Amino acid sequence: MLRDLIEKNRSYRRFKSEIKLRPEQIESWIDLARLTASGRNMQPLKYAIVTDEKLCGKIFPFLGWAGYLSDWKGPAEPERPVAYVVVLKDRLISENHYCDDGIAMQSILLAAVEDGFGGCIVGSVNKSKVSRLLELPAHLELLWVLALGKPAEEVVIDTAQDDIKYWRDEKDIHHVPKRPLNEVLILKK
Amino acid sequence: MLRDLIEKNRSYRRFKSEIKLRPEQIESWIDLARLTASGRNMQPLKYAIVTDEKLCGKIFPFLGWAGYLSDWKGPAEPERPVAYVVVLKDRLISENHYCDDGIAMQSILLAAVEDGFGGCIVGSVNKSKVSRLLELPAHLELLWVLALGKPAEEVVIDTAQDDIKYWRDEKDIHHVPKRPLNEVLILKK
Repeated sequence: MLRDLIEKNRSYRRFKSEIKLRPEQIESWIDLARLTASGRNMQPLKYAIVTDEKLCGKIFPFLGWAGYLSDWKGPAEPERPVAYVVVLKDRLISENHYCDDGIAMQSILLAAVEDGFGGCIVGSVNKSKVSRLLELPAHLELLWVLALGKPAEEVVIDTAQDDIKYWRDEKDIHHVPKRPLNEVLILKK
Repeated sequence: MLRDLIEKNRSYRRFKSEIKLRPEQIESWIDLARLTASGRNMQPLKYAIVTDEKLCGKIFPFLGWAGYLSDWKGPAEPERPVAYVVVLKDRLISENHYCDDGIAMQSILLAAVEDGFGGCIVGSVNKSKVSRLLELPAHLELLWVLALGKPAEEVVIDTAQDDIKYWRDEKDIHHVPKRPLNEVLILKK
């Protein structure tokens, strides 16, 4: 059921780095994103898959992790992502990608979760450094980086009271406060 | 399997308007969107559910339909959406909703498809008119309208050659050309 997938699809930031991902598996997830809705059906999004260990290691320092966990500098080496999908907009196709990026990345992550993996949308990216590292041509604008792997952490959903900042408890469980349904529904007619 | 859901989740613009949707059913879909990833976990999105027939009728003229089908003025009365979800950003929470809208709407539409319904993300919306009609306060910015109902059309995915414009054949089947996988993958390392 979709509900199970969505509940399981948390933003995972710590992974079992000994469990690798084959590019072909990630391709099958992107193949789903390819079939999703796109504003004016322009489909300007492109995807770079990185599974090479060395290259993953070079991308890692250009990513920012979990802004609210100010004491945490991101996953330690044995818990780093084993793959990345760099999500790009091809400006030769369109300057406007509407909300295609969210649609596509949600689809990729749900597919990853279905296959027993998981990931996190990273928005805090040194885009120029990553673009240079991957030798991306200028017309491909880096939008997001998806960090991927086999999750090595427990993430639980709490009901938000006032504060929506995620946090970790003494057992290292990651808590994410989500606003209750009655707070996000503003009208029913 | 997620693949089946994603393949079935087409942008439907014609519906069996005699088959209604209860607000509670739509609420269960929004409850999934509520649990999805949100930039900085801010969760600024809010949702207005409209199932009232009269109000749906008033919203309809403020929507633009299928830009590439220039001869088609949108669904005729027996094929109009039976419900709308108006997706809003609460500016008192955040001015930036990142790609939360795509993530949330993809989740809602996948949930709708799983329940035998479907819909379409409508971006061509007379936002000020719809906002006034629903008496939305100024801090709620209208982002998108989801048109919902029981699909009454067949939508097929083709492999895009050069043209990505969707079209309808002589049997009234809606064709959507999607770029092939090798075109959207720009690098594999």
